[in-house]
Amino acid sequence: MIVTVTPNPALDLTWHVDRILPGGTHRADTGVARAGGKGLNVARVAHAHGAPVRALATAGGPTGDEFAAELAASGVPHELIPVRGATRRSIALVDEHLGDTTIVNERGLNPGPEEWAALAEAVRRSLGDAPVRGRKPVLVLSGSLPPGAPDELLPGLIRLGRNVGATVIADTSGPALLAAADAGATVLKPNAAELAEATGIADPVAGACELLHRGASLVLLSRGADGMLAVTSEEIVRARLAEPLAGNPTGAGDAAVAACAVLLARGVKDPVALLRRATAWSAAAVLMPLAGEIHPSWPDLESAVMVDSPSLTALRRPSVERTPR
Amino acid sequence: MIVTVTPNPALDLTWHVDRILPGGTHRADTGVARAGGKGLNVARVAHAHGAPVRALATAGGPTGDEFAAELAASGVPHELIPVRGATRRSIALVDEHLGDTTIVNERGLNPGPEEWAALAEAVRRSLGDAPVRGRKPVLVLSGSLPPGAPDELLPGLIRLGRNVGATVIADTSGPALLAAADAGATVLKPNAAELAEATGIADPVAGACELLHRGASLVLLSRGADGMLAVTSEEIVRARLAEPLAGNPTGAGDAAVAACAVLLARGVKDPVALLRRATAWSAAAVLMPLAGEIHPSWPDLESAVMVDSPSLTALRRPSVERTPR
Repeated sequence: MIVTVTPNPALDLTWHVDRILPGGTHRADTGVARAGGKGLNVARVAHAHGAPVRALATAGGPTGDEFAAELAASGVPHELIPVRGATRRSIALVDEHLGDTTIVNERGLNPGPEEWAALAEAVRRSLGDAPVRGRKPVLVLSGSLPPGAPDELLPGLIRLGRNVGATVIADTSGPALLAAADAGATVLKPNAAELAEATGIADPVAGACELLHRGASLVLLSRGADGMLAVTSEEIVRARLAEPLAGNPTGAGDAAVAACAVLLARGVKDPVALLRRATAWSAAAVLMPLAGEIHPSWPDLESAVMVDSPSLTALRRPSVERTPR
Repeated sequence: MIVTVTPNPALDLTWHVDRILPGGTHRADTGVARAGGKGLNVARVAHAHGAPVRALATAGGPTGDEFAAELAASGVPHELIPVRGATRRSIALVDEHLGDTTIVNERGLNPGPEEWAALAEAVRRSLGDAPVRGRKPVLVLSGSLPPGAPDELLPGLIRLGRNVGATVIADTSGPALLAAADAGATVLKPNAAELAEATGIADPVAGACELLHRGASLVLLSRGADGMLAVTSEEIVRARLAEPLAGNPTGAGDAAVAACAVLLARGVKDPVALLRRATAWSAAAVLMPLAGEIHPSWPDLESAVMVDSPSLTALRRPSVERTPR
């Protein structure tokens, strides 16, 4: 069982406009509404690939009703914790002419203490519902927190997961990344910029070691077109495709987390296996127009993933030649 | 009693962004949602100035729920006709740095025949509810129609109004403007471009006469910074301010319609009085950030309105010098 938590979900609204003129007035067909948020992207990908999933999120106000309706239609098993504040909106205007997308993300409203407590209780209950059969449940904590959320929220959920024997994956950034490591998250998945920013250490391997030292077991470092790096206390493994793929990178990191969660929920712990699948699903997500989906050709991509244990010197060399075209 | 009909209402959503970069990702505070549409703007202004009003519109789906909640909070008396299709959205991104606004209007969904019939029945009932006391009710039909709406809709509502003795104001454009004149709308309020486009006649006075010939009694022609023109079968009157005002022109035409509706509902029929108030309220709307509101200084603006009966030659001269700065 994989339990995903999205602490700052959003109703994603997308409109397609022929050509966006700043300051202009445009006509568009009805926008598409989707229940969004990184934890939900993870749950969608894992559910679509047969893993038992429960997606947890808050929902409030009329936007929360629309969020709930879309999530119900998606078929992803879920539980929504009712909150007083309206679910935030995230809006995307796709310029059909240029192909680029202008995005406005609302920051979100901070639930009250009793609403956060209800979310924690739902996490506890969901992990308890997980079938045992010798397999640990996996708790995934993904995405931003609303402004004003308590510093203790994420560490508290991580400890709650560890206390009931769950494997915990956290995809977060900033001070929350260090707090997640301190609280003993099993897997952390920063990208290189997030890792450097949180640890204050420019070198990615040294930064990953700092997170391991604090209490994490595995750091999966996403490096964009350079693939991914798995760092444990015992090894450093690198995975990448021969040629980076062009496409939509939104949701690629969530697909990597989903790969990791699905394998961990099946009892697979080998960092190389996790890294290979995470790299393949991440690349397969780049081929899809929407976050929360991966391309069915992922097994071919996984076959093409090159894995090695690079020298530290090679890792520290900037890789200008691998910028995607 | 003023009954306003908004056949293609919208949930207006507005976000303020520091500086909009096309193709970029932006953070914003929670957007503001408002029940929008030209007929509702008319109803808001008339209601705020003490006129008995009932605003009629359709509402459906989760956006319709949000629309209904905001309209209820506004205090404007209203009746919403439930429809299956979701109320359309209109989104506005305000660039706080440049001060301009990028707008995307959804086209809207066409209600079914029985839903349009329910709207007509609500119009009939609302006009029947109007207190008599020798004063005719005023029916205001404002704004666009959803794509696919029956051609007979607007003429049918106009005839319905005329049959129960109401004064009918229609603010529409395209072929619907001619159809409204044919159906005997009392007052029509096109702008110069709409009039020329609908009649195929470049000269505004000749275009207005075409509408009078078809069946209208008064044409109020909005001319932007050049003020307004009232054309009846007996006179041509021009009204304007000495200096055009800078501000937000959205909703200025709706304020003019509201002025007209409020005076007509009080039994005032003099075209000069209607024109003077319409020009003042239109200018007072330009001073407000939101459509559906007018600045409380409107009586001073009305005092400053200059009214004359221009020669046709003066009207036909292009007025390059009066472009607002």
